[in-house]
Amino acid sequence: MSVLVVGTVAFDSIETPYGRAREALGGSATYFSLAASLFGPVRLVSVVGDDFPRRHLRRLARRGVHLDGLEVAKGKTFRWAGRYDGDLSEARTLSTDLNVYGRFAPRIPAAWRGSPFLFLANGAPANQLSVLAQVARPRLAVADTMNFWIDTTRPELLEVLRRVDGLCLNGEEAKALAGERNLIRAGTRLLEMGPRLVLVKKGEHGSFLFSRRLRFALPAYPTGNVRDTTGAGDSFAGGFLGSLSGSRRLDGRALRRAVAYGTVVASFTVESLGTGALERADRGDVQRRFREMVRFASL
Amino acid sequence: MSVLVVGTVAFDSIETPYGRAREALGGSATYFSLAASLFGPVRLVSVVGDDFPRRHLRRLARRGVHLDGLEVAKGKTFRWAGRYDGDLSEARTLSTDLNVYGRFAPRIPAAWRGSPFLFLANGAPANQLSVLAQVARPRLAVADTMNFWIDTTRPELLEVLRRVDGLCLNGEEAKALAGERNLIRAGTRLLEMGPRLVLVKKGEHGSFLFSRRLRFALPAYPTGNVRDTTGAGDSFAGGFLGSLSGSRRLDGRALRRAVAYGTVVASFTVESLGTGALERADRGDVQRRFREMVRFASL
Repeated sequence: MSVLVVGTVAFDSIETPYGRAREALGGSATYFSLAASLFGPVRLVSVVGDDFPRRHLRRLARRGVHLDGLEVAKGKTFRWAGRYDGDLSEARTLSTDLNVYGRFAPRIPAAWRGSPFLFLANGAPANQLSVLAQVARPRLAVADTMNFWIDTTRPELLEVLRRVDGLCLNGEEAKALAGERNLIRAGTRLLEMGPRLVLVKKGEHGSFLFSRRLRFALPAYPTGNVRDTTGAGDSFAGGFLGSLSGSRRLDGRALRRAVAYGTVVASFTVESLGTGALERADRGDVQRRFREMVRFASL
Repeated sequence: MSVLVVGTVAFDSIETPYGRAREALGGSATYFSLAASLFGPVRLVSVVGDDFPRRHLRRLARRGVHLDGLEVAKGKTFRWAGRYDGDLSEARTLSTDLNVYGRFAPRIPAAWRGSPFLFLANGAPANQLSVLAQVARPRLAVADTMNFWIDTTRPELLEVLRRVDGLCLNGEEAKALAGERNLIRAGTRLLEMGPRLVLVKKGEHGSFLFSRRLRFALPAYPTGNVRDTTGAGDSFAGGFLGSLSGSRRLDGRALRRAVAYGTVVASFTVESLGTGALERADRGDVQRRFREMVRFASL
């Protein structure tokens, strides 16, 4: 079943101890789409400028990413530049140029309003609410967020939490949003704020899944080849929702497997600067690493 | 089978956001012994001063910790003071008074020299080597270490690595000792330096076990009630070696289970200031949390 994603398509300029990339294809919706498309069709809603090359569109289309919701606006595409030091756990943003994304008001194509799976990538809660108002109730709607929105638009973000099924964020953000210093307490508190699933991304330390009936933790895939962690969180969400989109039931077993698929897909993303390693991965690669994860993480 | 531990018995003064303790029973060998004694008999080698109260000895003896190797020297017992802020992940040392421990030369009682399991708690590599020279080759000898020894006595520490079966240390220490920024690469590199098991403690993020044939990761037990992380690493090692001391074979299954038991035992330690919660835990409590870990961590 189709997964609908609303987020950014961008040019990323990245510096790491292992090399640098200039104006590489990036953005939350890009990474999510490339990840989720390993499992089934993806519907992408975003905006790019008239400087966005057709070859990037073809890269996405080849993977089964439908682009009818990708608006091309007059002006320049969103650009982000960042630098990673040391262990690559966190980027320092060097510059953010919203460009056409600064005026983005997401419009969901009529044919896509009944999409069963929805991912609201990190973005203004007002935009996330606008998308939720346009779609029929999905089987599973998951929103991502970050510190900036927690600090500046908390009331709108709390409204998003009441309207989605799942929340996806990193450990520090979970603690900040919940007002708890302990991650387990934070997860429990966030469930009280609306969503029935809370997915906490911890980078090299793996992830947590909290629901009212399930608590599950999984380490990251043990790759010794981490080059660039940009897009890892969105890839994780893409693998998670992509995997669920192929599940008959959204029970505990399906959720655990989805976390593992998210983990595996993100492990490809971090192995190259930009989207290269993720684009090269195929379903066979994903299955092999999934089986490795089972051996690596199971008692 | 018996587990022999050589380490500190100390008075700890601890400040946390949840309260403070003054001159509480602490030290690496204390936490290790209380943890390992949940699984079988423990033999403790350490030194205390003549200010050390008999009631503390009784607390250890009641748990099946044999104290024939605990020297009582003229002078004061080792004292440590530390403070935890925020998420309790790291203590700031306020003071360290080695006192009688500063002149400690470990002497293993003759009857204990054939102990099948040995834990060399964090300490001077010269002392660790002296212990290794006194004992018959144990079934499994594990050494702990820390940044101070990595930075100041690297050649002696490398000699320890060549003589033990297992190395136990935290993630940052593993990276520093291996000279690698990535933990997976660090684990692989440390195996090349001698030990056939590398156990990396990551606090709230759980642990890794590396061997030539096995890579295994386990999250921490999901307690929402973390009060004081002092002694958690030594408790983890105690649960790990205690569990193995009851295993017929030291194969992959036994090692995975031992990591889980170490994880569970450490989860009690962090739930009180000092050793209280660990001392209150019994085998039934340990089994209950072990079963929870299986549900929490298994795909």
